[in-house]
Amino acid sequence: MPVYSAPTKDMSFILHDVLNVNNEDIAGYSDLEPDFVSAILNESAKIAENVLAPLNAVGDKEGCRLENGVVRTPTGFKNAFEQMKEGGWTGLDCDPDYGGQGMPFILANAVTEMFSSANMAFSMYQGLTHGAYSAIHAHGSAAQKAQYLPKMVSCEWTGTMNLTEPHCGTDLGLMRTKAIPQEGGSYKITGQKIFISAGEHDLAENIIHLVLAKIEGAPAGIKGVSLFIVPKFMVNDDGSLGQRNSLSVGKIEEKMGIHGNSTCVMNYDEATGFLVGDEHKGMRAMFTMMNEARLGVGVQGYAQAEVAYQNALDYAKDRLQGRDITGTKNPDGPADPLIVHPDVRRNLLDQKSFVEGARAFSLWGAYLIDRAHRNKDKDADGLVSLLTPVIKGFLTDKGFDLCIQAQQIYGGHGYIEEWGMSQFARDARIAMIYEGANGVQALDLVGRKLAQDGGKYVLAFFGLVKSFVSETKGQNEAFDRGFLDPLKKASKDLQGAATYFMQNGMKNPNHALAGSYDFMHLFGHVCLGLVWSKMAKAAHDALENGTDDAAFYETKLETGRYYMARHLPATGMHLARIETGADPVMTLKAANF
Amino acid sequence: MPVYSAPTKDMSFILHDVLNVNNEDIAGYSDLEPDFVSAILNESAKIAENVLAPLNAVGDKEGCRLENGVVRTPTGFKNAFEQMKEGGWTGLDCDPDYGGQGMPFILANAVTEMFSSANMAFSMYQGLTHGAYSAIHAHGSAAQKAQYLPKMVSCEWTGTMNLTEPHCGTDLGLMRTKAIPQEGGSYKITGQKIFISAGEHDLAENIIHLVLAKIEGAPAGIKGVSLFIVPKFMVNDDGSLGQRNSLSVGKIEEKMGIHGNSTCVMNYDEATGFLVGDEHKGMRAMFTMMNEARLGVGVQGYAQAEVAYQNALDYAKDRLQGRDITGTKNPDGPADPLIVHPDVRRNLLDQKSFVEGARAFSLWGAYLIDRAHRNKDKDADGLVSLLTPVIKGFLTDKGFDLCIQAQQIYGGHGYIEEWGMSQFARDARIAMIYEGANGVQALDLVGRKLAQDGGKYVLAFFGLVKSFVSETKGQNEAFDRGFLDPLKKASKDLQGAATYFMQNGMKNPNHALAGSYDFMHLFGHVCLGLVWSKMAKAAHDALENGTDDAAFYETKLETGRYYMARHLPATGMHLARIETGADPVMTLKAANF
Repeated sequence: MPVYSAPTKDMSFILHDVLNVNNEDIAGYSDLEPDFVSAILNESAKIAENVLAPLNAVGDKEGCRLENGVVRTPTGFKNAFEQMKEGGWTGLDCDPDYGGQGMPFILANAVTEMFSSANMAFSMYQGLTHGAYSAIHAHGSAAQKAQYLPKMVSCEWTGTMNLTEPHCGTDLGLMRTKAIPQEGGSYKITGQKIFISAGEHDLAENIIHLVLAKIEGAPAGIKGVSLFIVPKFMVNDDGSLGQRNSLSVGKIEEKMGIHGNSTCVMNYDEATGFLVGDEHKGMRAMFTMMNEARLGVGVQGYAQAEVAYQNALDYAKDRLQGRDITGTKNPDGPADPLIVHPDVRRNLLDQKSFVEGARAFSLWGAYLIDRAHRNKDKDADGLVSLLTPVIKGFLTDKGFDLCIQAQQIYGGHGYIEEWGMSQFARDARIAMIYEGANGVQALDLVGRKLAQDGGKYVLAFFGLVKSFVSETKGQNEAFDRGFLDPLKKASKDLQGAATYFMQNGMKNPNHALAGSYDFMHLFGHVCLGLVWSKMAKAAHDALENGTDDAAFYETKLETGRYYMARHLPATGMHLARIETGADPVMTLKAANF
Repeated sequence: MPVYSAPTKDMSFILHDVLNVNNEDIAGYSDLEPDFVSAILNESAKIAENVLAPLNAVGDKEGCRLENGVVRTPTGFKNAFEQMKEGGWTGLDCDPDYGGQGMPFILANAVTEMFSSANMAFSMYQGLTHGAYSAIHAHGSAAQKAQYLPKMVSCEWTGTMNLTEPHCGTDLGLMRTKAIPQEGGSYKITGQKIFISAGEHDLAENIIHLVLAKIEGAPAGIKGVSLFIVPKFMVNDDGSLGQRNSLSVGKIEEKMGIHGNSTCVMNYDEATGFLVGDEHKGMRAMFTMMNEARLGVGVQGYAQAEVAYQNALDYAKDRLQGRDITGTKNPDGPADPLIVHPDVRRNLLDQKSFVEGARAFSLWGAYLIDRAHRNKDKDADGLVSLLTPVIKGFLTDKGFDLCIQAQQIYGGHGYIEEWGMSQFARDARIAMIYEGANGVQALDLVGRKLAQDGGKYVLAFFGLVKSFVSETKGQNEAFDRGFLDPLKKASKDLQGAATYFMQNGMKNPNHALAGSYDFMHLFGHVCLGLVWSKMAKAAHDALENGTDDAAFYETKLETGRYYMARHLPATGMHLARIETGADPVMTLKAANF
């Protein structure tokens, strides 16, 4: 049975030692005192470790079943969902006007990681609800908010996002689902939606589907798409549930992973829907959900790598196989533990240094979101908008890769389902695909975000690197060599890539797009290089100032040095690939592939 | 339903245009005229495409079931196995003295790829039998060969390899299975073996288990291990089957993939076994099987990537989504096919250029094996021994990665089991683990093979690169720039890594072992760079000399250019990682992970 122990200590280190949250001038951040944050993290850790984690393998094995139109979730999910609701975990960062606790997003981000590590499929029921909540909160009418949000905050009702159709995924302009206006202001929605996570289940008394559809006579393509609330059960004016809406589950998909979440084909057959926001402005409303969802998916990526790492580490310490080539470490045993072997350590440190860096990057992203939303800070909004595809694409790609590496530590046992490592990898795989496949993230990054507002935000990013380097350099030779030198080199590679795009993308955009995926990874490495340098600085300062927990800070420094030495050299490779331009990619005719 | 079309044309190109097999002075190679080779490849393609491929998804879905000690293989497997046997495909390269067809290994290697692409789990029943055949053929007595080999060549009886026990995988010295000598020369074998592929099934009337065990009083550790034949049914002197041996299936493992192959826990309870070769020399005999098996596993790696690529390509041509940024390509349709998009092409070309390079590398390895075995060429034997861990480790790692990339082309559909892309990835995953996990391959490469005979074989490899470059350079500027320059750069990186190991590994072997995994990948890239340069030269010559099939050769050149431009820059990254040495990997105390 796999283990999971929530990394609350590491989260507190990032929040307090690195981001120094309770001293930041963001509304609500002054409450984030260490003791308060610890209390929240420790309580959510209990739910994650004791309630959700034990159901992870159960969910994988049983999956969801569709019987006579009703979806049954795996054994124990209903009870666990009740505990989530009772603990108030479903509305942590939601608006107090609708029953939420109004805490900063950064705290919700940390809790999301724990729940995802413990049971990714389970945590999606709440995660999708939160996305739907956000869209209604941002774009719904006052009446809609009053009618739907309180029950969604409490997860008495859950939510879904209905975008994809069989013939259109990324290209939502091809959408066929229709909305026909009715007297009284409602619409009849007809069409089929696929890949609807948590589309139908037995955890809540109602499900609020958010559905993209085209109103009759709408403009062609993406500019004619509108967003609708389509409840499973109609909601009466007094809040009680009325009749069943005419929507149904076509089937549950059999997937590679996240079996505990019901991924449904949803059929809308003249279902009653209510317009959210303006006609034909559905994409704007949907993007509110999607950006938040993309950050959440980035968290899923490293959350799976975190739990996979914890198990791989346990195995590497327990499993006796072979002897340390430099001298026996376990003379009383028949062999030494796996962790004595350099290549096993290489593998484990790849994982550990990525996960801790990813966590810091993600929490920094959450900090920027809080600054953007709570302080209406447009610069923070622009920067996090630039970083969102990097957080989603890079963290899920690497997160999956490192689940595979963790599985590898187990040798043959890693391939056997009962050991649980396969599930971490299979579950993590979806994060590279949904909420915009990672190739689409790279396109968003290079095709839209990079040049946004004249490249203002990427320049701001480079400015952050530069000012960090100039503030810290020259104080400690080992720190400069281990962190600042590789960071400068990596940042220079990123600048080289951006320059290449600028100089060549104008005459042919394919010179940029052919390098978009490499750019996303290059950017990701520089981001992790930056946050690792900041963590190392904080650890260094703590050791200089004296601490009771020297081992923690020394380990942090060692792990950071590993990232800089062993992960960051990838930036040179990505730059070299990018600088080959469009020709290697575009020359071959499609017929000759 | 996934498609598969055997790449016979590409195989013929490698065998004839590049390796020029029928003009090589290797016993049996003069028979390998293009027409003859084509006939064999086309016939095996029919079996692969029409018999095996249609059962691939069936095997995944149904899996193998254990009922009252009997294992049932998936629907259709028995019939397909009969067709394999009837066609003579089970003994293609086996000794004619025992009913084999005596063809060169290189031809069997090509056929293995097709069968693996079409149905990896199915082809393992024959693959394991071939491994067991090879061990008995090399180390068994004349009587044992006469008794067992004819039925194994025909696959009337299948074979297995029993190495792993619950507490010992890589470190076979920890083995507990015992062999107690009996009167008459046989042994009683008692112990439990795990991960036994094809351990029990309904495809053959008998199963010949090769089991490693320790004879009572044997030396401790790996030097006390002996190899035994332990038949499921005893074989009478007249070849008929006698009584059931006392061995049984404990259970079938539930695995991430290759569900169609029965992976068994095997219990031996005083089962009758017969010593193969000398007492305590079991590892030597097992290595005969393992080296062959490792090459076969390398083939599985790129074979899965090949079939995954074929399907990803089909999807990329069919699926309409978005528009070409440089101008609509499909004005009559609602959108352009995916293949217009640069990042989709980047992904497809990653796959295509890897698979074709891997195939050439693997066939070159098979050529070296034929030269080593048929001509008793010790240099060829040394070189292929050096390359074996690279073929196994690099081709399976990359093969899996590229299955994941192929799956990504499908977006959400890639995650749904019915589309088949998940199976390719799940099946390919095992190839990184079994027959020596890839970390062990890297250890074998750097810890044993690299310095073998004073580094003679790695120097020979560098000599091959050097002489190819000096023979071909200066004839064509584009060829030099596109192929020879990057090949020289990559080869220099490999030499730099080898030099680093030499200079630092002496004082501390961990300086070498901490870089072993990167070295294996660095070496793999240089090998593919070399074979791609050779393929490009052959394509270039064909175009210069005039050909009816210019598109094929031009595509080959383009694909090769892509590999050199986009894959080879990885060598600099691997070198940089290697040159950080042992410290980043070894400094952190195990307790502080």
